[in-house]
Amino acid sequence: MTDDTLPIYLDHNATTPILPEVVEAMLPFLREHFGNPSSGHIFGRRAHDAIEHARCHVAGLIGAAVEEIVFTSGGTEANNLAIRGVMEAAGQGGRVVTSVIEHPATDQPCARLERQGTHVVRLGVDVHGRVRLDEAERAIALDTALVTVMHANNETGVLQPIEPLAHLGHAAHAVVHTDAAQSLGKVPVNVDELGVDLLSVAGHKLYAPKGVGALYIRRGTRVAPFTLGAGHERGLRPGTENVASVVGLGVACAAAVRDLDEAAARMQRLREELWERLVAAIPGLRLNGHPELRLPNTLNVRFPRVAGDAVLGGAPEVAASTGSACHAGHTTASAVITAMGVPAEEAMGSVRLTLGRHTSEDDIERAGAALVRSWRAVTAER
Amino acid sequence: MTDDTLPIYLDHNATTPILPEVVEAMLPFLREHFGNPSSGHIFGRRAHDAIEHARCHVAGLIGAAVEEIVFTSGGTEANNLAIRGVMEAAGQGGRVVTSVIEHPATDQPCARLERQGTHVVRLGVDVHGRVRLDEAERAIALDTALVTVMHANNETGVLQPIEPLAHLGHAAHAVVHTDAAQSLGKVPVNVDELGVDLLSVAGHKLYAPKGVGALYIRRGTRVAPFTLGAGHERGLRPGTENVASVVGLGVACAAAVRDLDEAAARMQRLREELWERLVAAIPGLRLNGHPELRLPNTLNVRFPRVAGDAVLGGAPEVAASTGSACHAGHTTASAVITAMGVPAEEAMGSVRLTLGRHTSEDDIERAGAALVRSWRAVTAER
Repeated sequence: MTDDTLPIYLDHNATTPILPEVVEAMLPFLREHFGNPSSGHIFGRRAHDAIEHARCHVAGLIGAAVEEIVFTSGGTEANNLAIRGVMEAAGQGGRVVTSVIEHPATDQPCARLERQGTHVVRLGVDVHGRVRLDEAERAIALDTALVTVMHANNETGVLQPIEPLAHLGHAAHAVVHTDAAQSLGKVPVNVDELGVDLLSVAGHKLYAPKGVGALYIRRGTRVAPFTLGAGHERGLRPGTENVASVVGLGVACAAAVRDLDEAAARMQRLREELWERLVAAIPGLRLNGHPELRLPNTLNVRFPRVAGDAVLGGAPEVAASTGSACHAGHTTASAVITAMGVPAEEAMGSVRLTLGRHTSEDDIERAGAALVRSWRAVTAER
Repeated sequence: MTDDTLPIYLDHNATTPILPEVVEAMLPFLREHFGNPSSGHIFGRRAHDAIEHARCHVAGLIGAAVEEIVFTSGGTEANNLAIRGVMEAAGQGGRVVTSVIEHPATDQPCARLERQGTHVVRLGVDVHGRVRLDEAERAIALDTALVTVMHANNETGVLQPIEPLAHLGHAAHAVVHTDAAQSLGKVPVNVDELGVDLLSVAGHKLYAPKGVGALYIRRGTRVAPFTLGAGHERGLRPGTENVASVVGLGVACAAAVRDLDEAAARMQRLREELWERLVAAIPGLRLNGHPELRLPNTLNVRFPRVAGDAVLGGAPEVAASTGSACHAGHTTASAVITAMGVPAEEAMGSVRLTLGRHTSEDDIERAGAALVRSWRAVTAER
């Protein structure tokens, strides 16, 4: 951001800016290379080739094969395709095991299956916000068709135990899906190491544009198309491909591969600095989430004796949120935080501060000072 | 196109270039204004306001109210939301009346309903490719839940009798949907004049980007969400909004309102010129479709005694197609053309030539000459 009057953006889990190199790569496909990838002529072939090139980059980020990537309109559609597509292909039978801290893009498709008669089990989380494996061991039985648990929670950044969940799932012959919208580009993500059969990608959390995403589908996994139409994306996702945005997603994935280690280390260092600044000045400040097993950019804290909204309202220098952007406007306590055993009233003091690749030392200094000042002002009013 | 080595693009029904003013309007939202419209801070509010501004332009193009527009990832998703959303809200009962010439994005959702037990009636077309109203009168009965017929056919450009179909549908208390992907920006489209309850918009047929579209939903029409997730778009379409592309769609709709009359007249004049050039040189050339009641940019012709593919193969100066791009690669006769009573072998001679706002007199001269030369060469080889 070059505009000095704008607040410091600490809401990167809501959405990220698009990398300049991503925009540059998209421009030719917004201008001269406008063909329909399904057309046989040169205009179409150029668009088609660009999509296949992007597919390589997306596959490369997660250790997948090129033909295991299906492009979608975003993470929500990817989750719908995964969950509803697996259950339709499985022919109704079998339970679904998910968690109490999923994004609505996972929880709502599961809730719909539940209304239609599917047995849906929602695993609880421990005090650190990690899905409880003891519950998973009991829940994932031989009649489980699908296990779907997010890789990293959007509010707390807490990394979930996907590997052991995948082991449990596969032992029960279930298909295993994870929504990696928040973790991609922040921590290493490899489909074989995680052991998942399906993995959702959301472009706009990854410095790519909004309106594009992907679903990884392991070879041999049976998935029925969700949206119906013509035969695009090997019959799994109809509709003329969003060429420019797919190209952008590819470049963003390549950038994530290149920059991950350095960016993650840098964000983690700055995040720890922000935490130190806040905790030193605010007695009773608490961390929401696991002290180590979480995304390097995410700091979700509970301010004591105030509402998170009030703290943010008093710190206009900082653009952040009290919970997920998708729930903005709600004034109830976050279900993700209360699921960790935090009383609702205390949970209302939560603020999510999420750093990005361009967050600077100066941003953190100023943001920390503004939040402390605001908390003091709000509590002094009492 | 500034590249002189590129062929003349006569495939605008497959996809259109994005207008320069559309790209310009998108750029700030690909660069500095990257916020999530659901965020309460300034970054979010800017994105939110841009979406609402675009919504006004889309509504303006079709004579709708602003709150009757829901943004989607494109025409295919809009059709899925319309057809499956209405039938889910209606609770299964009632038949669906559609036509034999629909795009797969309409036909496939209908086919799925059919597999699930819904009675689906597909209306035939006359020799000019217009849906038969006599069949419609018999098919649309009191147990009809949905009538869905496209406004203009993508292959022939033939305009369908939506007004009388809507009258029949409403007399039976059915919901009436039309896919206007091909007609928008080429002929006037007004939801009240057509009398429809739902209308699908596809950005990339309208000089806006790929990967964005909209569904018009008349106030009071019951539609269940199709994709499930968070509460975006009044609960009807979850997923973080594709801000830049939505902004582009808005500008493209405003341009369509402004330019429609002139662009349509110009395309029609050039199309007639192309037809005259071809028919004068090729004895036995036939028009596929209605002589008048069709899109001003569309010329679908049958070359005698040759395959359309062969004519296009011999005219590399012209980028066009033998049918819809979504079926590219198929070597069977077009179902749309054979539905008009054309024998399959004759139908194989069809070529779709579709003009755009930037097609020039010179393009038409050169394209006409190339196609005539190619047809002569192919037939001389026999």
